[in-house]
Amino acid sequence: MTTSVSTLENLATQLRIDSVRSTSEAGSGHPTSCLSAAEIVSALFFAEMHFDPKNPQNPDNDRFVLSKGHAAPILYAAWAAAGLFPREELLKLRRIDSDLEGHPTPRLSFVDVATGSLGQGICAAVGTALNARRIGSEYRTYVVLGDGEMAEGSVWEAGNIAVYYKLDNLCAVIDVNALGQSQHTQFGHNMDEIAARWKAFEWHTLVVDGHDIPALLRALDEARATKGRPTMILARTLKGKGLSAIEGKDGWHGKALKKGEETDKAIAELEKQMVPDGSKPDIPGPRSKSRPEPAADYSKIPAPAYKKGDVVATREAWGVALAAVGAVDPRIVALDADVKNSTFSDKFEKIAAGRFYEDFIAEQVMVGAAMGLAARGAIPFPSTFACFLTRAADFIRMGAISFANVKFTGSHAGVSIGEDGPSQMALEDLSMMRSVHGCAVLYPCDAVSTERLVVEMARHKGMAYMRTSRPKTPVIYGPDETFPIGGSKVVRQSAHDKAAVIGAGVTLFEALKAYDQLKAEGIEIRVIDAYSLQPVDEKTMNEAARATGGVLITVEDHSPAGGIGDAVSEAVAAAGFGVRRLAVREIPRSGQPDELLDRYGISARHIVDAVKHAVAARPTLA
Amino acid sequence: MTTSVSTLENLATQLRIDSVRSTSEAGSGHPTSCLSAAEIVSALFFAEMHFDPKNPQNPDNDRFVLSKGHAAPILYAAWAAAGLFPREELLKLRRIDSDLEGHPTPRLSFVDVATGSLGQGICAAVGTALNARRIGSEYRTYVVLGDGEMAEGSVWEAGNIAVYYKLDNLCAVIDVNALGQSQHTQFGHNMDEIAARWKAFEWHTLVVDGHDIPALLRALDEARATKGRPTMILARTLKGKGLSAIEGKDGWHGKALKKGEETDKAIAELEKQMVPDGSKPDIPGPRSKSRPEPAADYSKIPAPAYKKGDVVATREAWGVALAAVGAVDPRIVALDADVKNSTFSDKFEKIAAGRFYEDFIAEQVMVGAAMGLAARGAIPFPSTFACFLTRAADFIRMGAISFANVKFTGSHAGVSIGEDGPSQMALEDLSMMRSVHGCAVLYPCDAVSTERLVVEMARHKGMAYMRTSRPKTPVIYGPDETFPIGGSKVVRQSAHDKAAVIGAGVTLFEALKAYDQLKAEGIEIRVIDAYSLQPVDEKTMNEAARATGGVLITVEDHSPAGGIGDAVSEAVAAAGFGVRRLAVREIPRSGQPDELLDRYGISARHIVDAVKHAVAARPTLA
Repeated sequence: MTTSVSTLENLATQLRIDSVRSTSEAGSGHPTSCLSAAEIVSALFFAEMHFDPKNPQNPDNDRFVLSKGHAAPILYAAWAAAGLFPREELLKLRRIDSDLEGHPTPRLSFVDVATGSLGQGICAAVGTALNARRIGSEYRTYVVLGDGEMAEGSVWEAGNIAVYYKLDNLCAVIDVNALGQSQHTQFGHNMDEIAARWKAFEWHTLVVDGHDIPALLRALDEARATKGRPTMILARTLKGKGLSAIEGKDGWHGKALKKGEETDKAIAELEKQMVPDGSKPDIPGPRSKSRPEPAADYSKIPAPAYKKGDVVATREAWGVALAAVGAVDPRIVALDADVKNSTFSDKFEKIAAGRFYEDFIAEQVMVGAAMGLAARGAIPFPSTFACFLTRAADFIRMGAISFANVKFTGSHAGVSIGEDGPSQMALEDLSMMRSVHGCAVLYPCDAVSTERLVVEMARHKGMAYMRTSRPKTPVIYGPDETFPIGGSKVVRQSAHDKAAVIGAGVTLFEALKAYDQLKAEGIEIRVIDAYSLQPVDEKTMNEAARATGGVLITVEDHSPAGGIGDAVSEAVAAAGFGVRRLAVREIPRSGQPDELLDRYGISARHIVDAVKHAVAARPTLA
Repeated sequence: MTTSVSTLENLATQLRIDSVRSTSEAGSGHPTSCLSAAEIVSALFFAEMHFDPKNPQNPDNDRFVLSKGHAAPILYAAWAAAGLFPREELLKLRRIDSDLEGHPTPRLSFVDVATGSLGQGICAAVGTALNARRIGSEYRTYVVLGDGEMAEGSVWEAGNIAVYYKLDNLCAVIDVNALGQSQHTQFGHNMDEIAARWKAFEWHTLVVDGHDIPALLRALDEARATKGRPTMILARTLKGKGLSAIEGKDGWHGKALKKGEETDKAIAELEKQMVPDGSKPDIPGPRSKSRPEPAADYSKIPAPAYKKGDVVATREAWGVALAAVGAVDPRIVALDADVKNSTFSDKFEKIAAGRFYEDFIAEQVMVGAAMGLAARGAIPFPSTFACFLTRAADFIRMGAISFANVKFTGSHAGVSIGEDGPSQMALEDLSMMRSVHGCAVLYPCDAVSTERLVVEMARHKGMAYMRTSRPKTPVIYGPDETFPIGGSKVVRQSAHDKAAVIGAGVTLFEALKAYDQLKAEGIEIRVIDAYSLQPVDEKTMNEAARATGGVLITVEDHSPAGGIGDAVSEAVAAAGFGVRRLAVREIPRSGQPDELLDRYGISARHIVDAVKHAVAARPTLA
């Protein structure tokens, strides 16, 4: 490193000044959380990290993740100081016309993942560190956490996985300022208690004075020299450091100084801390040029190899397709939470073990790492039982805010899993994923549509979710059928449809059974496979509504809230149509799949009843 | 203890036999995960724990939580062996006509919380241990985990909180059989690596041979004698122990033995392990009689002390009400995740510090502990920012399966929080909570309705959720108005309503502004405050639909999926009405609250436009 210590100290002071000034101008924000981290950020940005400050997306830049996202103003100040944009921009902090938001998002070129939900950035950092290996780059990943974050279990999930994958290209720094939002943290400044935890988690662990630049530089040197495991630097700091009136005091979290005298006095106090030094920081460029990624040739993916009537679980077809897509696209990676032999992600592991990440039973770091990988160009497919994706709901939410290109899959959906009982039955996954802005939500019923949709997911820009099923279901589509996202399939129709029954996954087959029974009684219905629930096929749903005089019935192995019924309902709302919903309306129990479909009101028998009831009560409009 | 070691060994063998036999009969289940835990369960149930085996709900019984819920068959076998029900019942395992489900649920009298999503039971155990102090009982809590569970961050959240609260009445046993579902665990049988983690987390930590009854008994003795902190017993075991063909082998997770020869041979091998011993187990009864709970007198709660036009944030009124309810009902407890000065749960802490649990930034253990507390008679109010409740989505899901009497509150909902940006804006909480079966979902707009609804939540049997808002809003209701769960308020109406606008929380005030503007233009609308979204007021919504010729417009500071629009839509679906939805349809950004309501399409201006558009396009039916 060539930047002098006094320059780094002055830069720390400048970061403090900018953090105070921008939050005061905004009238809100977390200046004291910035002030404790000033030397850490200065040392990292202006002495340690190798990057091109004019091109934050250079694939070989060292990565910086601000896990304590509320310290955003100091991150912005650091990039301004590095020369990416003028310092005056900082005064637009938190304004609607600025991308310098209250917490960092990837609207900014230098942010890989949105932070602000604590304990997530370190999981994403695991992902960017794994990605360096995937692309053969020497870039390192640095992540700065707050000490309060250590309460989040996800931090310890990351702790384990970083060690399991021996991520010596990962260095974390915890800004131990001892104060949370509402009170002291659990461990305060007891550095020994904190260090004991990280040592036990097998990280190379160092304790330093977080306001001592040379000490920080020595620790970063040691981290870089440490092989075979990640390094944790525990930096003892004071919240509000540099401002004598508030330094180390409780009650100052998330409070901007008042514009005017209070701020002016603070700035003046900080300016006095500048030391004479004429030099500028010297930021070293990226260490290596990563190898170019081989192009993906999707034309090489074989067509689905099933014939109509074959009986295959969609979860298994998903595994076949994931391996097939992974074979042609080196950006595809898969992540598992110790259920790969049930989800069938083990089919991918067999063909691409180096791009398969076992996260054990730790769904949060699985999704967080996927977000980090996606931010660096990978196309991650994390998967587990659909019900356990809820464990990572907050990560998925932040994934959307990160515009993350992550492809989720949840298997074992609904009561059709049978005997394992309600704890294993996802009945809220469609709701969870449909409320994620921009997420494609897919729910295929057979092996052919599953394979086609896995390819669509991989090519889709942005988040996508596929729901797969445990039981084997018959193949109903020919190998050449296509399944665009946003489409649907009308699988039965006539000129005299009295109702349209819309299912997906296992319930489509119940709808087909109901069709046969009703037809035998002289009642024609339309049956629609709503394999894409977000976006939903508005055109086909509205046509069905018009054709049937508004008699739409959805049937889903899911809670009545947020799933197929609601998706179809919104699609036809503008035309004033309503939707009757068959769904699982109580807490289910263990039993055989067919028993459960019937007991919880989503079997063919219930569809037949619902059609007859709705046809009898159809609106006078028709 | 008076049960002999040989009796305990025989009981362990009997538990093995019953676990094998019941899973074979069911044709599915996890016998090998039971076999590794047989001595642990035998020692706990028949030598260590004090309880009345005929009355599992005795408030002074020691509590047993099976965190590794997939070992349910051995739990059922233990209670059968303890005499609660005949052993023959075990053969009904996983049948639809039996409560002996694939994973334990509180349909069974001896199950406090549903398990089967790993890493949750230990959080609930923290709650039952905290509850012992609340009711002044000497009961102890025992929790058995699988080693794979340690990958879940929630386990470490529980680890921290149990130490923070010095829970020496809590003893955990990890069944370290080294095998997960799909492969070895991260640490296998490296007991030192595991022990180092728990020691660093400051638990009294012991490593024993998990198949050695005397060693287990000594460890349990030591746990009981340990003061000021919880004890972790790490029991080294073999998965499938007792069956030579599968003992310690990978590939046997979640597989029942085949009925017939395979099972018969296994049973015969186990039966040979019985040692001669004529004695029966001697289960000691509960240690103490807990003090009777003083009765709650809700008539002492003061009426809301606001007058119309006062400007108060609903989050603050919630804090006032929580303290008021807590003052009259000793069962009320509150749990926080380091945001009590923002949610205003600190108002409760001030009047009842002994019933306030600070969980730092650890939402999973906050909710899990609430479930444990609720299972033992407390009425817990966990709260945090609504967006961060998603961190505990899987716990909330399991809470519903547990029929847990937990009252959630999420503050800072929607874009109306302003400058902090999207990471802090809950836009999917209504969707998450509405897909939870049986959960009352409440969203008050003013201080009076908030206070009334907090009382309703406390009295409601089962789960409830309240969404509160950050900005101050005017009081619009008189102090004597009532707000039953499932109701709504028609706040504007006439004989000539052309449309009904349904809002809640901050959007109700936008609807009122729109009403004024439209009225000035001669267009009458009905305005409805849908303060209860689950159940929703079907009667009022259908009346509004009929009165307006089906022109219903919902407006919500939430994603379009799963919130107010969907709730109202389902309420009017049977009558064939559709609902137009104004909602937040993109990832929002930082800005001022009013700017954001307008930018994201949910301000008065957008409501006016939507009404005019819908009225122009109303169905010919009207």
